[in-house]
Amino acid sequence: MSLFELQIEARAGDGTQRTSDGMTLAARATNFETAHGTVQTPLFMPVGTHATVKGITPEVLSEIGAQIVLANTYHLYMRPGTEVLVEAGGVHKFMNYHGPMLTDSGGFQLFSLEHMMKPGDDGVSFQARDYDGSKHHWTPEDNMRIQEEIGADIVMQLDQCVGYPAKREDVEASTKLSWEWGERCLQSHAREDQALFGIVQGGMHLDLRLESVRQLLAAEERNVSAGGRRFDGFGIGGYSVGEPHETMFETLPAVCAAMPEDRPRYLMGVGNPTTLVRAVAAGVDMFDCVLPTRTGRMGTAFSSEGRMNLANAKYTHDHGPLDPQCECSVCRNYSRSYLRHLVKQGEMLGGMLLSQHNLFYLLDLMRRARAAILDGTFASFYEDWMSSPAANDY
Amino acid sequence: MSLFELQIEARAGDGTQRTSDGMTLAARATNFETAHGTVQTPLFMPVGTHATVKGITPEVLSEIGAQIVLANTYHLYMRPGTEVLVEAGGVHKFMNYHGPMLTDSGGFQLFSLEHMMKPGDDGVSFQARDYDGSKHHWTPEDNMRIQEEIGADIVMQLDQCVGYPAKREDVEASTKLSWEWGERCLQSHAREDQALFGIVQGGMHLDLRLESVRQLLAAEERNVSAGGRRFDGFGIGGYSVGEPHETMFETLPAVCAAMPEDRPRYLMGVGNPTTLVRAVAAGVDMFDCVLPTRTGRMGTAFSSEGRMNLANAKYTHDHGPLDPQCECSVCRNYSRSYLRHLVKQGEMLGGMLLSQHNLFYLLDLMRRARAAILDGTFASFYEDWMSSPAANDY
Repeated sequence: MSLFELQIEARAGDGTQRTSDGMTLAARATNFETAHGTVQTPLFMPVGTHATVKGITPEVLSEIGAQIVLANTYHLYMRPGTEVLVEAGGVHKFMNYHGPMLTDSGGFQLFSLEHMMKPGDDGVSFQARDYDGSKHHWTPEDNMRIQEEIGADIVMQLDQCVGYPAKREDVEASTKLSWEWGERCLQSHAREDQALFGIVQGGMHLDLRLESVRQLLAAEERNVSAGGRRFDGFGIGGYSVGEPHETMFETLPAVCAAMPEDRPRYLMGVGNPTTLVRAVAAGVDMFDCVLPTRTGRMGTAFSSEGRMNLANAKYTHDHGPLDPQCECSVCRNYSRSYLRHLVKQGEMLGGMLLSQHNLFYLLDLMRRARAAILDGTFASFYEDWMSSPAANDY
Repeated sequence: MSLFELQIEARAGDGTQRTSDGMTLAARATNFETAHGTVQTPLFMPVGTHATVKGITPEVLSEIGAQIVLANTYHLYMRPGTEVLVEAGGVHKFMNYHGPMLTDSGGFQLFSLEHMMKPGDDGVSFQARDYDGSKHHWTPEDNMRIQEEIGADIVMQLDQCVGYPAKREDVEASTKLSWEWGERCLQSHAREDQALFGIVQGGMHLDLRLESVRQLLAAEERNVSAGGRRFDGFGIGGYSVGEPHETMFETLPAVCAAMPEDRPRYLMGVGNPTTLVRAVAAGVDMFDCVLPTRTGRMGTAFSSEGRMNLANAKYTHDHGPLDPQCECSVCRNYSRSYLRHLVKQGEMLGGMLLSQHNLFYLLDLMRRARAAILDGTFASFYEDWMSSPAANDY
């Protein structure tokens, strides 16, 4: 099996079957190989922005069954810088994580951190206000070179992402810029041991989303005709930027349906359990989000009973497990009372353990979704989820 | 072998042998049993003030070979409170640490946190300014009851500790109060599965220190005559409170020599590597200090080359191990460059890994001291240490 070639192991539904909330069932279980190991989808990717998943050791990532760990090109470019990463032999060795990794291009950060991003035909100028205020300019080619130096297994094209709400003309402009940059990334990316994913943009406009898919595929066709590479997968960017959560599902299923079957689909920056379950139904394979670690550090846990705020006084005398239905080592070994104590005292261990549990929760949710797809029970898995107390956790 | 009975396995020196810096060699290797396992000395005890060693999981405590973990009576009394700990089945179950534990009485905190401590014959009144400002009163008997409820394997008598410098009359008063409280603790402590340690006070005055030892032993004799218990060990409190580090060694060897041979000696609140090595030579068996975790969180590491501040720019491109002579998993798996990156970014993992290394460093130092005592090479171990770059780390 060659690197990054998608194997579709099973599909849920016959393409016409619908869920009780009206979604066409299009879930799938797949796998593909990377230079650091094979991954199985659907999967959730823990985020290690600065080459560390906050509060989580590589040993714990392994224990909880993380398959791919994310890092961020913008942040690593600023600190420690690519020179250090190249000296170290790449990001895996630098951070002592030896499984598959993915780097986002940094496009989202340039947008969301408001670095006075000035996108233009020749790339993007930005000021690193959250670091030393220094000014930088990236062309798509620069971004590819930087991601090659960082050395993850999967790299994302440079893109531009607009917020919500946004004027249609702004979404149009950024979507066009993104597919143009996608083509330049495709042309310039050179490492054969790295997958390159294009990114579908288009905001909340289905026609722009579908045009984005068409243009990326047309760019790919031109590049392949010229003897170049194709995209190994596709990100779906520009969702979860402030819109009501139902808004995404007005377009996401049709976007997935328009995307090539034979490439992984990665819905970027989405981490609410129920959104994951519904997006899997729509045909998404991969997810990432800081939510499990960020909320964990703030004292909040995902659970089969819904989101729990451990700072709540009602847990003071509750010596039961965090989530009785969860099999992670946090739920097997620590009580709600102890976790509440750690949270109230601001102890590091509180954030560490809740982050670990929250990551396990999403990783395990995706493992269970995959198992259900493989054994033909995804439709009932979906309905069971949607009628459970945990379904309120959007 | 009965609980807490000290077995002396080996001694270093013949009682007359001196080190090159003039210390009489009186080191010893011992062991004793607790309800949660046997411990071997000399040993260092990681501090888990609030029933958690900051940034360190119980799994890591086990990996690095921690033998006894400390917790603090004052802090646990305030939060989560003894009611919660009793419900949980004791502090071990509460925090998911199942090895031997020790609780300090809280006397030091009442002194060092300046809670408007008002010691008197009937105990101590204090205001919990670092919590809710509530007012409390502890008699020595109250303190014993609280430590029994917390449920550690070793509990310390309630004592009063003065700072440095202090008027001799203040030291005299607090030393007398401490031995009187020691006798009341001895009389009222009731759990047979808990060791009770008396605490030698006396500031920097050798005569007061020796009087403190005599009075504790006289109190013990009275209690045993009345059919009661003896002290299972002795703490040495009131050092490392701001005095120059040489000042302690003007009196510590003579204090150790005056203490009973058949009970463990615990030098409280001391954690500098070289101070540990020298105090072991003087005959101390046990140590505790927040130093390894506190400095670790601040980006500082113990090392065979002396103390390292990982924030230093010189480590940016240094891809070698933190301490090439250390065998801990941090030194085997992470580079100085990566650790510097974590420290500079304020990443939790930086504090976690440096705390882990620093704890291992002291635990391992004590294991090596013990091995040297057992194989008759402690004198050269001592001289090697004192002539190494690490010896500057006081």
